[in-house]
Amino acid sequence: MEKSNPIVGIQLARNGERPLYSQLAQALKELIIKGELSSGSKIPPIRQLAGILGVNNSTVVQALEVLSREGLIYKHVGRGTFVAPSSRSQPPVEGGGHVYDFSSLAPATELFPVLDFKKALNRALDYYGGEALNYQPHLGYRPLREKMAALLGQEGISVSPERIMVISGSQQGIDISAKVLLEQGETVFLEEPTYPGSLLTFQGRGVRIINIPIRQSGLDFVELEKRLADFRPRLLFVMTRLQNPTGYSYTPEQKAHLLQLAYKYNFYILEDDYLSALDYRDYRSTDPPLKAMDRWDRVILLKSFSKVLMPGLRLGFVILPEGLQEDFLGAKYAADISSSGLMQRAFSFFLQDDSWEEHLKTIRREFRSRYQLVKKFLKEQSPLLYFWDPEGGLFFWVRLNRGGWSEDLAVLLRRRGVDIAPGSAFFAGKRQTPWFRLSFATGSKKDLERGLDLLKDGLQELQTGQDLDRIPQEEPEKRLF
Amino acid sequence: MEKSNPIVGIQLARNGERPLYSQLAQALKELIIKGELSSGSKIPPIRQLAGILGVNNSTVVQALEVLSREGLIYKHVGRGTFVAPSSRSQPPVEGGGHVYDFSSLAPATELFPVLDFKKALNRALDYYGGEALNYQPHLGYRPLREKMAALLGQEGISVSPERIMVISGSQQGIDISAKVLLEQGETVFLEEPTYPGSLLTFQGRGVRIINIPIRQSGLDFVELEKRLADFRPRLLFVMTRLQNPTGYSYTPEQKAHLLQLAYKYNFYILEDDYLSALDYRDYRSTDPPLKAMDRWDRVILLKSFSKVLMPGLRLGFVILPEGLQEDFLGAKYAADISSSGLMQRAFSFFLQDDSWEEHLKTIRREFRSRYQLVKKFLKEQSPLLYFWDPEGGLFFWVRLNRGGWSEDLAVLLRRRGVDIAPGSAFFAGKRQTPWFRLSFATGSKKDLERGLDLLKDGLQELQTGQDLDRIPQEEPEKRLF
Repeated sequence: MEKSNPIVGIQLARNGERPLYSQLAQALKELIIKGELSSGSKIPPIRQLAGILGVNNSTVVQALEVLSREGLIYKHVGRGTFVAPSSRSQPPVEGGGHVYDFSSLAPATELFPVLDFKKALNRALDYYGGEALNYQPHLGYRPLREKMAALLGQEGISVSPERIMVISGSQQGIDISAKVLLEQGETVFLEEPTYPGSLLTFQGRGVRIINIPIRQSGLDFVELEKRLADFRPRLLFVMTRLQNPTGYSYTPEQKAHLLQLAYKYNFYILEDDYLSALDYRDYRSTDPPLKAMDRWDRVILLKSFSKVLMPGLRLGFVILPEGLQEDFLGAKYAADISSSGLMQRAFSFFLQDDSWEEHLKTIRREFRSRYQLVKKFLKEQSPLLYFWDPEGGLFFWVRLNRGGWSEDLAVLLRRRGVDIAPGSAFFAGKRQTPWFRLSFATGSKKDLERGLDLLKDGLQELQTGQDLDRIPQEEPEKRLF
Repeated sequence: MEKSNPIVGIQLARNGERPLYSQLAQALKELIIKGELSSGSKIPPIRQLAGILGVNNSTVVQALEVLSREGLIYKHVGRGTFVAPSSRSQPPVEGGGHVYDFSSLAPATELFPVLDFKKALNRALDYYGGEALNYQPHLGYRPLREKMAALLGQEGISVSPERIMVISGSQQGIDISAKVLLEQGETVFLEEPTYPGSLLTFQGRGVRIINIPIRQSGLDFVELEKRLADFRPRLLFVMTRLQNPTGYSYTPEQKAHLLQLAYKYNFYILEDDYLSALDYRDYRSTDPPLKAMDRWDRVILLKSFSKVLMPGLRLGFVILPEGLQEDFLGAKYAADISSSGLMQRAFSFFLQDDSWEEHLKTIRREFRSRYQLVKKFLKEQSPLLYFWDPEGGLFFWVRLNRGGWSEDLAVLLRRRGVDIAPGSAFFAGKRQTPWFRLSFATGSKKDLERGLDLLKDGLQELQTGQDLDRIPQEEPEKRLF
């Protein structure tokens, strides 16, 4: 007798006592745990599954979401959904819950100044009424641009409010910069590794991407100059302070060098300043952004508050070089007409009183303490792990130092209720790397501690099943990528 | 003695009693009114002006903004800023104020349900706290997507919440659809005339644009079929209900025809449904959107509430066809990561009680009465003006029927404190047309009435100075464009 697909045998009770999706999730879970759906096997496509079972597509989607959260299945973009490895031997954590997400840069919700911001929102509505909810001036709400000019002034950037455009977060800034500066076939230079959202934008724009490695000592300037002469890019995208994902901060000399190159080879630098408020060095940081040293007007500065205030603000700022204002206004209009007038006004009120400074103190204290906790953990894991010390920010760039891929570690950790960001996400064309980004931004400190314990277990498990010679043992600096 | 530039003689008092920009605006105004800066002459570039006068660029910008609002100067994109014609003989309206903006589709602020929305915002913050201000699921907040599915169900569209993606307004929907569907060099078909924001997006994407005329009887299907065979587009962008700017609504037969063509020639239709709630016909409208008839899944429906609720909502919805979900999620991420979680939750609460239905009743009543007022006016102006009757919406598509260009009328009206939207804005390559869009969305009804009086005066003035034979007198239908 031919072995039939075990899914066909699933029975769902339609008496309404328990939602169909929940029954389906339970039934699939049992098949996986019993091994009838074996590790690595493909789950049929949603429509097919819905057809077999006689349920709506959405029922299937919800059931798969449950299994995915429990680490029993995983999605492979473009290939489908699969049963996670060793699901049988490794049942999910108690209750299928999620313990800690080391992959997320969404800051801990508990740290958001919700009450202060609520006050600011209500003030904005009371003061402006419907005006706050109508279309906005294309550059953005002027008092907010003035406040931003003042904040930038504190960082050594002298800029008029007319040159500051409000946008809906840094990602939009990257997207419209790509539109303004890059026609298809033109060239952009990126740091490697880099922020995945920038890869998404530049790949979607159909431009040529040239990657310049970030070493532990910073951007590889030898490589950069060689490539500049060959490719003549229009744009270089950099994060000069607490680079994502490496945490590297450029030295003043490196910044000066970069600006000279931008002048010499006539390209713009898109500088994403998204995390600079979080510097934990004991000496007061005196490093200004690249833009503060930009006497040739080559730098387009993006400033956002998603990580240091709240992602839900959905506001950011672009400092526009002379001559590009009209183009940026057009690209912003094409993107979403204007950013929320209510949020702009509320943020402006919020910046007006002490809330902002107090909030900065709070998050610096909290994240610095998390940073120290995780750093201590990473040191204890040496020589199993190797890491770069960012001296700030929300994450570490960590390497599996005894062989193994972070992508395998991610699968294995997910079953324990823990997520990491495998390094391949930060490269244009890598499928596996020993590096991963370990963020401590999200959740509570207690969950972070539990997460670290599980990470430790996961690392042990990875080592146990590991062919330690699979990756040649070189010096860390040489085998970065 | 050589005649010096009159601007050099401007004296500004730096005693701080009156802002520099305001003094500068006044001084320039006097030069214009005295005729020392003559009609049509170019204002020096901002930096040069700032240099001459020893003030900041921003001071000059603010001063020019004042003059621009008063209609004394105008900008010509790419060419500079000029003194408006006949400024001397036609001083600005009392106090330099603005009377009515017939060019704007931003609905009257007084009609926004500010208090109800404020309540919804506070409920969202009280209920969800920081979660409302964090990153959001990429498809959007699920309860809102469920409500949207229910609303679409009332229009005959059966769709699961998994196929509804929240976006930051219709314009973003057009922009990400262009990214997902069109590589550079591919072809998009547009209605002609069409919404300027779509032109901005498609031109910025570097794709080939083919325009299909909208006649008074609807889209020119003969032209469309001829072009389809030649160009094989990937996408057609349409507004099937109350098309912007013509106000035309497709008949059910035209919709069926369009769908058959989409199937036959294998293209997607991007349908922007932005105004359908505003139908003033006495019989209950039974026309569903194209999407309701879409059995081949060729339609990408955009739904927004900017015009019927508040532009400041910055929310819209895309109904995704099977197979495009992943691509749209990626493009949305690249655009702005996610739309405001707070606005999504507030809108969801707002839709929950009676506020939404009540608001719809209010704006239908108000805009219908404005529609009737403007229609009466336009009839009275016949045969000077010719117009299409949209039987709904917020604007009329109007033609100068005795010669003259709407672009000239716009300049002339601006001096009277009135703006119209000249037709050329709605065409990809026209600089002059006798058509213009006359919107009655904004401001108070009283201002609208004053605006109509000034429009009448402006029309008289235009006729007086007019060579009536400049445009050949054909039948309206034949000389649409």
